[in-house]
Amino acid sequence: MITLHGFAASNYYNLVKHVLLYKQLPFQEHLIYGGSDELLKVSPAGKVPAITTAEGLNISESSVICDFIEETYPAIPLYPENAGERAVVRQIMKMAELYFELPSRRLIPYAFSGTEVPESVKAEVRQVLTRGITGLSRLCQFSPWIAGERFTMADIYVYYVNTIVSAFGSSQLDWDVLAEIPGMKQWNESMSQSVIAKKVEADRLANMPEFMQKVKAQIQAAKAT
Amino acid sequence: MITLHGFAASNYYNLVKHVLLYKQLPFQEHLIYGGSDELLKVSPAGKVPAITTAEGLNISESSVICDFIEETYPAIPLYPENAGERAVVRQIMKMAELYFELPSRRLIPYAFSGTEVPESVKAEVRQVLTRGITGLSRLCQFSPWIAGERFTMADIYVYYVNTIVSAFGSSQLDWDVLAEIPGMKQWNESMSQSVIAKKVEADRLANMPEFMQKVKAQIQAAKAT
Repeated sequence: MITLHGFAASNYYNLVKHVLLYKQLPFQEHLIYGGSDELLKVSPAGKVPAITTAEGLNISESSVICDFIEETYPAIPLYPENAGERAVVRQIMKMAELYFELPSRRLIPYAFSGTEVPESVKAEVRQVLTRGITGLSRLCQFSPWIAGERFTMADIYVYYVNTIVSAFGSSQLDWDVLAEIPGMKQWNESMSQSVIAKKVEADRLANMPEFMQKVKAQIQAAKAT
Repeated sequence: MITLHGFAASNYYNLVKHVLLYKQLPFQEHLIYGGSDELLKVSPAGKVPAITTAEGLNISESSVICDFIEETYPAIPLYPENAGERAVVRQIMKMAELYFELPSRRLIPYAFSGTEVPESVKAEVRQVLTRGITGLSRLCQFSPWIAGERFTMADIYVYYVNTIVSAFGSSQLDWDVLAEIPGMKQWNESMSQSVIAKKVEADRLANMPEFMQKVKAQIQAAKAT
């Protein structure tokens, strides 16, 4: 059986969990936070999530895990069979990662520590998010799914990226980023209504108090040094 | 025939070009710089490189282009057949991208404009590079190739990532980042000796004067506003 290592407050963890649930694969969850030696044993750079496969292989990095799961368990497919269509799905995922997720994540330390984001950082983040809006507006279909008629890995991936854009990008910049892409907010709302998304969200909320305690302890430790 | 859009001073462009040359696929190069409407026609977020396939499909984002080329032209393979081994190759590529390339790129504007990198930015970049050193040290084999006995996509990918780490990360931080990973510098040196790498490098050097003129014009335009 697959073991999923990490914690439910992580959107990267949740997107892999959503993929496993969607593909109806049996797995167990192993609660583990960043910064532990135990995590380094399964994740070479110490990042959440990681999986241990049925054969005992450890794999880290969400997009690599997603590709591995798809290739190893092709039933209930999440990528189109056609290489060109697959490239569109992957471009949407890549743009969401590079131009939505990563810039929004730069604002997390300021949000958690309650300090003001410097204007220079805001300007950089806005610029990258604008690139994401340009690219995703041109590629996303929402008809009804993000890459067209079929539900794909990009639907799951972007849905969990958007949680970070909303929680940190939009709030810290006072800018409704998702509203800039016609159809994105309606699609996002419909994604949140699935049974799997609701389960993942309930687990996330249950983990949040413990996760925020760890964040607070880290901030206090950093202040003390 | 495939058309490769972009310019030879870009390491992203060069890694796709190296893949096309390695796989002995016929292609034509279309010289185009960032920030043009012409580029937006083939690259939804306006990034270099993009390709137009033999069937007329436009694909952007280097890693997506690499996957598409591999899947469409499986001869002279660059990924292992085994899904677990493929996941190792992809983890190396992903770590090089996230923890080596992207933080080093944050230093490019300072290098080009000749301004001092703020200490806070240096600290952030050092932290991410350290994560990359930890992860890559554990995954890279250099026996003789980066993922082990076989030459893979990760060899090409990391080699071109390293050009950015060396040119901007190491120089701006006064830190020989690649030397922190045992075997990396020797492998990098042997990679640079291949016929393909030498051709790509010669083309890069030929493009540099024109590229730097464009950079200077952009910096002056930014100062004037």
